[in-house]
Amino acid sequence: MAAIDMGSNSFHMVIARTECGEVRPIQKIAEKVMLATGLQDDNTLDQEALERGLDCLRRFAQCLQDINPKMVRCVGTNTLRKASNGNEFLRQARKVLNCPVEVVNGREEARLIYLGVSHSLAHDDGHRLVFDIGGGSTEFIIGKGFDPVLTESLHMGCVSYRERYFADGKITEQGFRKAVIRARLELTSLERSYRDLGWNSVVGASGTVKAIKNAMIENDWYQDGIDLDGLYKLRDKVLSYATLEDIDIAGIKADRRSVLPSGLAIMIAIYEQLGVTKARFSDGAMREGILYDMLGRHAAEDVRERTVRALMKRYSVDEAHAERVQNTAMELFHRVEKDWDLGEFCQGWLKWAALCHEVGLVVSHSGFHRHGAYLLTYSDLPGFTRQDQKIMATLVSCHRRKIRPAQLDDVLPHLLEKVRRLVLLMRLAVVFNRSRRDGALPAFSIAVAGDSVKLTFEADWINQQPLLLADLQQEQDIWKKIDCTLEFE
Amino acid sequence: MAAIDMGSNSFHMVIARTECGEVRPIQKIAEKVMLATGLQDDNTLDQEALERGLDCLRRFAQCLQDINPKMVRCVGTNTLRKASNGNEFLRQARKVLNCPVEVVNGREEARLIYLGVSHSLAHDDGHRLVFDIGGGSTEFIIGKGFDPVLTESLHMGCVSYRERYFADGKITEQGFRKAVIRARLELTSLERSYRDLGWNSVVGASGTVKAIKNAMIENDWYQDGIDLDGLYKLRDKVLSYATLEDIDIAGIKADRRSVLPSGLAIMIAIYEQLGVTKARFSDGAMREGILYDMLGRHAAEDVRERTVRALMKRYSVDEAHAERVQNTAMELFHRVEKDWDLGEFCQGWLKWAALCHEVGLVVSHSGFHRHGAYLLTYSDLPGFTRQDQKIMATLVSCHRRKIRPAQLDDVLPHLLEKVRRLVLLMRLAVVFNRSRRDGALPAFSIAVAGDSVKLTFEADWINQQPLLLADLQQEQDIWKKIDCTLEFE
Repeated sequence: MAAIDMGSNSFHMVIARTECGEVRPIQKIAEKVMLATGLQDDNTLDQEALERGLDCLRRFAQCLQDINPKMVRCVGTNTLRKASNGNEFLRQARKVLNCPVEVVNGREEARLIYLGVSHSLAHDDGHRLVFDIGGGSTEFIIGKGFDPVLTESLHMGCVSYRERYFADGKITEQGFRKAVIRARLELTSLERSYRDLGWNSVVGASGTVKAIKNAMIENDWYQDGIDLDGLYKLRDKVLSYATLEDIDIAGIKADRRSVLPSGLAIMIAIYEQLGVTKARFSDGAMREGILYDMLGRHAAEDVRERTVRALMKRYSVDEAHAERVQNTAMELFHRVEKDWDLGEFCQGWLKWAALCHEVGLVVSHSGFHRHGAYLLTYSDLPGFTRQDQKIMATLVSCHRRKIRPAQLDDVLPHLLEKVRRLVLLMRLAVVFNRSRRDGALPAFSIAVAGDSVKLTFEADWINQQPLLLADLQQEQDIWKKIDCTLEFE
Repeated sequence: MAAIDMGSNSFHMVIARTECGEVRPIQKIAEKVMLATGLQDDNTLDQEALERGLDCLRRFAQCLQDINPKMVRCVGTNTLRKASNGNEFLRQARKVLNCPVEVVNGREEARLIYLGVSHSLAHDDGHRLVFDIGGGSTEFIIGKGFDPVLTESLHMGCVSYRERYFADGKITEQGFRKAVIRARLELTSLERSYRDLGWNSVVGASGTVKAIKNAMIENDWYQDGIDLDGLYKLRDKVLSYATLEDIDIAGIKADRRSVLPSGLAIMIAIYEQLGVTKARFSDGAMREGILYDMLGRHAAEDVRERTVRALMKRYSVDEAHAERVQNTAMELFHRVEKDWDLGEFCQGWLKWAALCHEVGLVVSHSGFHRHGAYLLTYSDLPGFTRQDQKIMATLVSCHRRKIRPAQLDDVLPHLLEKVRRLVLLMRLAVVFNRSRRDGALPAFSIAVAGDSVKLTFEADWINQQPLLLADLQQEQDIWKKIDCTLEFE
């Protein structure tokens, strides 16, 4: 199996084998792609950065030839979250890698990081604070064992802060101080809840922390961990250089120089604002977390199931009805999956969207399909990628009332046909359960051909069901708008 | 005091006196404006309907001359919810009436109806089902005493159904049947939860129910209430006429003819789908509810306080912090309210928005100000009008990060200056409480002139607060974007 992390600073790939439920890395590659440097003021990624990214993926792809594409995941983070032309990059990346290429939200990134880091550490009963200073965002997690308890992602990273506070490669005391203060301000938003929960140990991950640790050791400042005293010494050393290129500190590699001051400023801010006294380094990271997450999905401890149940609980969804609709949707799915060539991904989207289809009722009954789509698009849903959330949101937004073709505009072209068909199954599942009662399901057969669906009920049964009949007639009209046909007899 | 209900079918006004906490109507006027008839396919109201509405309000205004505008409320419902040019109508209506003119959501309409109806009935310990068949929507409430327990508003009304099922004024059996089935389908969405709660008595309100009751009495079909048997007899009678104009039934006034078949179809659907056997008529209505609601606001049983607290609970808001920010916001408000000419409405918006400013965290930390604005815009918030919700949403969406002037675009022009100033107060209240701790508030004085704010702290205090200093410096830059200035020393 393999995982690729398309970070804002570096792209990483890890290829691994599984042994007794443990992940054993076989090969690790990292390339400094500096994607975040290509992010322009209008939030588009420039052509050069896109090319650097794709070139790197082409090299990675050569190592992936013998691996089943189902066991490869490639995940983008902060820069690809922000880039308005990110979808185009993902499309091309999919072609290069021939595997799912997705973007995850900040909190999902934090969860995957914790999964990777916690598997790299000895077992420990206490709460751990884990931070990972990336190129565009920094993640903070308090977890216990393998379970993340608090997850957060803040908009600060060693590449984006370099652009803002060390512009033109100049190092100034004022710039450094501003970077620290800005990072401390960002941290105030999580400080209270994190301090309230508390922690017994602190672990830093990422290349920034690794470089700082190495500098500490080489300069004899390492005290069984990285402490604030050592960080201040490193800061004074850094401030003795006029430009980023001039930096020449034992333990700091040449390609780390340019993001050392910004990364160090963020790390100092973390210590000062959260009252951290000492942290150790872990080389666990999101890429390992992705691998463990894949293992979990295949071993029926799918975090997505837990996520959806938590969402339903948080928004007081009528669970009995959600399950009725899900069961009908799955029954319909299995009857047509071969003819419509729907796979595992499609099944998941339909299954989870069915469970969540009424989640928008928490906001208002009026237009609740739209509110549900909003919540599914923007909520932090551990285990789901942005693309998953977008597709589930589309299924929910199209599950009732009229469908405007524009509602399907956001779906990636290569998935459009499948998503449209999932919408049809979803709508039928809802119509069949309109009475909100168990056992009200009719006996029927379903046949599909292209975008046409034909339902056959037992002789004359449907004519004794004026409500269902009217409902299905209405569906016929609505389906036409997206070039699908429904027949029944 | 006075209340005006701009319904989809009729406009109503009631002028009342209060005696010992009870509302005593002095004058009631109704005019058949038929606003919904003017709603075109593109959801704009045509010029004729707008004029009919304004003409009616001009006549109403003549009766309002001696009443304090603070004790007058004018509320629009379904047609004005739907009309894309509704704001223009409201603006002109405000000029004519010189009092607040607002639109309420369906559930708020239902709450106000229940308030009106329950005050018209003898006290009763059981659950009551109340329905009100309007021109564009029908409201359903189960309540106990004066408290609504379930409220819902469905998209079906006697004017909109006439346009759909009795087009060109023709009465057909098929059209009637389709109307009943369509209404029954709409009802399935609430049937289960309403039946689960159950009721001991059923009360119908609105002109449709009144007309049907009168027809029952005149034709000797009234059996201590309106029963299904009587409704079927009336249906058969109605179906004996070929056109709406032909209708000539004892008890039905001429101006009720055109919406009788559609209203009757909806009423039959209610009986059939919800299993209602008998209902009585109440002449309580939204207009009386508005009066009782005004009384409550002035007597410190403001339903809005309860609504906001329920919202905070539902979305797990950190109450201690919300109250800190609210207290600071109110302190700032009182220091500048005279200079900035901010009144009671402004105080309410700021107070409640401060309590809700972190409500979007339930969705995600990333962009939570935008999620909060979404929830405040679309949630059913008893006691608040659409305009209230829009303004509170604006305050929440502008409370952090950069402000784009477009975020203020939705604010009505005559409120823009005040809302912009409330945004400034809100931001300062949040900045001053960044530490999320009690008692962290600095001693300061505030002076305003136009859109300029000057804060003065105790000598040199601010220079020992690097985080607050950086925060305020950032505010200076952000305020400039909306042409406001912040100074401090």
